[in-house]
Parts: sequence; structure tokens; C-alpha cells
Amino acid sequence: MAKILILGAGVMGSSLSVPALDNGHEVLLAGTHLDVEIIDALKADRSKHPTLRAPLPTEVIPLQIGEVGPEQGAAADVIVVGVSSPGIDWVIGQLIRLVDRPKPIALVTKGLAETGHEKPGAFTDRVRNALGAKGLGDCALIGIGGPCIARELALRQPTSVVFASDELSVAADFARMMQTEYYRVHTSDDLLGVEACAALKNFYAIGVSAMISRYVNPDKAEPAPAKNPTAAVFNQAIQEMARLAAWIGGRRETAFDLAGAGDLHVTVGGGRNSKLGKHLGANLAVTQVMEGPLKGETVEGLDTGRSLAPGLFSAFERGTLNPGAFPLACALLDAILKNKLFAFDHGSLGTALYPMETTS
Amino acid sequence: MAKILILGAGVMGSSLSVPALDNGHEVLLAGTHLDVEIIDALKADRSKHPTLRAPLPTEVIPLQIGEVGPEQGAAADVIVVGVSSPGIDWVIGQLIRLVDRPKPIALVTKGLAETGHEKPGAFTDRVRNALGAKGLGDCALIGIGGPCIARELALRQPTSVVFASDELSVAADFARMMQTEYYRVHTSDDLLGVEACAALKNFYAIGVSAMISRYVNPDKAEPAPAKNPTAAVFNQAIQEMARLAAWIGGRRETAFDLAGAGDLHVTVGGGRNSKLGKHLGANLAVTQVMEGPLKGETVEGLDTGRSLAPGLFSAFERGTLNPGAFPLACALLDAILKNKLFAFDHGSLGTALYPMETTS
Repeated sequence: MAKILILGAGVMGSSLSVPALDNGHEVLLAGTHLDVEIIDALKADRSKHPTLRAPLPTEVIPLQIGEVGPEQGAAADVIVVGVSSPGIDWVIGQLIRLVDRPKPIALVTKGLAETGHEKPGAFTDRVRNALGAKGLGDCALIGIGGPCIARELALRQPTSVVFASDELSVAADFARMMQTEYYRVHTSDDLLGVEACAALKNFYAIGVSAMISRYVNPDKAEPAPAKNPTAAVFNQAIQEMARLAAWIGGRRETAFDLAGAGDLHVTVGGGRNSKLGKHLGANLAVTQVMEGPLKGETVEGLDTGRSLAPGLFSAFERGTLNPGAFPLACALLDAILKNKLFAFDHGSLGTALYPMETTS
Repeated sequence: MAKILILGAGVMGSSLSVPALDNGHEVLLAGTHLDVEIIDALKADRSKHPTLRAPLPTEVIPLQIGEVGPEQGAAADVIVVGVSSPGIDWVIGQLIRLVDRPKPIALVTKGLAETGHEKPGAFTDRVRNALGAKGLGDCALIGIGGPCIARELALRQPTSVVFASDELSVAADFARMMQTEYYRVHTSDDLLGVEACAALKNFYAIGVSAMISRYVNPDKAEPAPAKNPTAAVFNQAIQEMARLAAWIGGRRETAFDLAGAGDLHVTVGGGRNSKLGKHLGANLAVTQVMEGPLKGETVEGLDTGRSLAPGLFSAFERGTLNPGAFPLACALLDAILKNKLFAFDHGSLGTALYPMETTS
């Protein structure tokens, strides 16, 4: 039995307590300053998470962040970072406060980090740098990717995910701690590739989802979304993710597996990135959606796009990357950065987005 | 302007006349002996195809197969094979009758062919062998893959497809003839890989679709299919397709592109393979479905499974392939060949289907 400290009691962090508890581990679930009401509710009834819509095992130990001190940090065998991407700075502060010695830190938090260099970095890079400044650069970092809607994990619906670390054995050790019949863990040593894909899939899910609303088949009974455009753009997204994963320093093939194609598949199926995309497909601009139907919501793919853009445009200028190979990213960034209508209509799909190219 | 002869006036063959006609080519659409009523209907009104549910351009020239003689065969610059997989023998007979000199033959017909050797072959191999016996082994063969529901093509909904030939220039020449704004053609020299994936995706779509009905999330309003299991098994399918494509003699990466992941995506979205899969997910046996709700229908993925099985099992016995890498194929073949219930439930997903493996 191990002691696992989860930072972040939103749906993702909380749901990871389920396979951890099913493995018999002790799980401290620490809320952020935004999770105060969630932790209060769990303290009143540990099985009732107010936003997860699935019960938690009552063995979970909910704590407000103020109740987590150096003692709990020192006792933890593994720390799991389960906040959403805007919480990365907060969580780095907590790690500096709580980590006393090298130990594995697993991030389910997904995002790209601007580095000031041409290429964006991964969140694990930022964690490593911050801990390194405290003399704890030896912490083993693990990235978690793959299709995993939090509520479904908590309901123990089966899925496959990937744990990645620079050292495969680190990923394998944590995989053995977390694996259950419903939570099948593959391992990878392509940490950067898994993190890049885990972040990029939110961005690309916006574009793929736009196809669902943009093209409709006529029908006597009820018009239904066309399926060819969504499938074609799903495919375009995984090709572009593969190119970006390699550019950032990971492996192409990682984009064709759980962290890329697998997670993109589930992300297009629902959630806020997908909702935004469907509105863009219906010709709303990003600001119209974010000040309207998605007001106050965090859409992680927007942040990923903003973090990706400076390095990507710089790579286009230097000729390191060819913009012709990223028509979907370019159309998305025009919509996100310039608030243009998502220009992925019939004509542009024909002339700009599918230059004939060799599959190799 | 070229003369294109399409053999097969079902939905797929007929829909290919649309981009061909939009490019200004002359298109002869020849029905098989099963298409007599379709051709009669088209002769009465060329825009009204009785099963396609989309109009055809009136420039199409419908012909009964008996009206297609050596003269039409000789005049054709390209012959397109558009029958469904059980029609491959019939169409080979027609090609032997009609082809007088080497010319490109493009197959949208998908399937694996038993060869008597360990590995299954592609339909183009059978066509090449049959024409070779007539001294016409020099015909350039083109395989067509990628996400393309026939009705949506005829409605000019945008999509991307791939034309593959051993000689890239042959694929590129035909791509230039067929490309339109809505029909974006990529090219590949991995003919065998594209054909393998085009066939295998029907087989695997059965397994992925079973997940849609098998796992349901509880909900106050209305229970909805869980999404993690479908995404995880979609991913498993493309990994297995990559292994099989390489085994058959194509390239792994072809499975991660239009002919594999892209076409699987659309095939899971609808059609008969998907319908069969949803019934299997609800614990009907294959015979119950094929003698019940799908009685009289052609489900191409079943034929693909039957053609795949002898070589696959032989490769398992010889140790050329590891059955542990093909849990989804094995579960599907148990259901297809032995009429077992599709054993892809919670427990087997956990213990048999996702052995921890290294993503590499």
C-alpha cells in the first residue's frame, strides 16, 4: 500500500482516486483554493462529489489545501497533479512547499508552456525547473495521457491510458500501482510526446468538432451531421499532431496512439473544447462563444493554441516548419488569435486544407 | 477529358461518377447483374438513383452490363471497380472480357483474398494475376481508401481519400483526374497497406461499434453510451491494423492515416458493420443478427474476418505474430467463426485486452 497525495479535487483529480483506492492505497485528496466547497461537501459525505456525478469510495481522505502541510508532503510516496491547466502555477508553488525529497510526481494536468525559445515546452519542464531551483531536480516526472473522461473513470467504465516518463521503469512502477481491470495502463518513455499530444488534442478537438455542425446531410425525417468531413478532419488533426509532437521533441508515433488519436476521439465526443468547436462550425466567432454560451468556462484548447502560436509562427518564418502542413492549426489560430470566423468551409477545405501530398 | 468506365452501379460505384463528371470526364456507369433495376431507373431519369438517396449529374451514361462490349472496354482510359466485396470474382471476369491493353484499373472494392499462403493478399493481387494470365499483367492497379460514405460523396460533402499504386505517378495521374474541391485526393505508393486497411477497417469497425452499446452511463434524463471504452477500443483497432498492415506487406503508418484511422472513424459512425457491432455489444451472437435484423445484408467485415483468419492463426502457430498483440481481432474471430458471444466485457477488457505494453 502506498500513500498518494492528489492535488486538485476537481473532476479529474478526484476521479483518479478511484483506481488508486481500488488498489488499496491511502489517498489524500487535496482541494485547491477553488475547491473549498467540494472538500467541504466530501467531508460531510465522502461518497458525494458535488460536480463529478459519480460516487467516490468512502476511503478517500478529503483535505483543504491549508490542512496539507510538510508532514503530508513528506509521507506521500507519489504526488498526483490533477488541477486544470490554468492551475499549473498554483500547483508548482504547492510542490515547492510540499516536496522534501525526490519522489515521483504524476501530471494529468495538460498544457503547453511558452518557453521564450522557439518551441513550446511541456508542463513537466516547468515543474522540473521549479523543483530544480530547490535542489529537487531528481524528482521523476510522469505524464498521463489517453482517453479518460473523469466521470466515466469514476464510474469504472473501462479505458486505456498511457503513463509516460523519461525512465520507462518509473512509468511502469506507477502503472502497477494504479492499474485495475477498468483502468488499463500502457507505458511510454516519450514523456514529451505524450504531454504534447495530451495538450494538443484539446486544441485540435475544437477544429474536428466544428465539422459536426458545419456539414449536414438533408433527410426527410431529420437532417443529420455528415460524417465524411468529421472523419477527414479527425485524420488531418492526428497528422498535424504527429508533426508537432516531433517538432517539440517527442515521437511522431505517439500521436497515433492513446495520447493522440485515442484521446482526440473521446474529446471530440463531448466536453467544452467540443462545444466551442460546434459553435465555431455554426459560424460564431470565439469571442461570441466565450462571452455567450461558454461564458466563465475554461476551454483548455484555447490556452493550448495561444501557447503554441508564438513558437509555431516563428518556426514558419525560419522555415523549420511548413505552414502548408498545418492548415487546420492555422485556421484554428486565425479563429482564436484574430477572432476570425473559423475558415474551414467547403471551399477552403478544397483549396487550402488538403493539398495533395504523399502519405509516407 | 477522359473516358471512365465504372463497373458496379451500387451506391459506391455510382457516387464516384460525381467527382468524375464534375471534372468533365465521360462516365459510363455499368451495372452488374444485380443492378438491373438501378440501371433501368437511371435510364428513365439519370438524376434519380434508386438507392443512393442523392442525385447524380445527368451527364452520367447508365448501361446494363450486356451493353458494355469490347468497344467500350477499349475506349476507356481508366476502369473503376465499384462492386461490393462479394462481386470481386464477377468483376474479374468482366475485366478479362473488356481489357484489351494495359490501362489503369482503380478498385474501391475492399477485401482480403485468401492466397493459400500464410498471409492474405489484396484484391489487386487477384486482379493482377487474372489479367496476367491474359498477358495484361502490365495494367497499373490503384487502390482507393479513406473516409467516404457514398451518399455523402454524391452530396459533395467534403472528404479526403487516398489513391495508392505501386507507382506513385500512376496514383497521382488518376488523382489529378478525380480531384475536386470536395474530394481531396492524397496519394501513396503503399498499395498493399492501403488495401489491407481499407478491408480491415470494416472488420475492426464491428468491434469498436460493439463498445457503443455495451457500456452505458447512468443519467437522470437519459442513459447515454460511455465514450472512454469506444475511444480506447478505436485506438486498439488502429494499433492492430498497423501490425496487420505491416505483416501483410504494407507500411504500419498507413494504418494511422486516411485508409486506416480516417476510414475506421467514419465506418464506426454508421453502416452495416457498425450495426452488426452494436448488436454484438448487446450480446447477440453473429448468427442471431445475420438471421434476424441484418438478414440478407452484406456485412463486408465478416468476409474480411473469414479471409484473415487462416493466415492469422497460422502466423500465431508459427510464432510469426503474437496473439497477445491482437486481442480485439481474436475476440472478433471467436464471434465470427465460432458464433461465441463477443467476449469484450469489462473483465476481459481488463485482463486480456490491455496487457501493459510499451508504446514505442
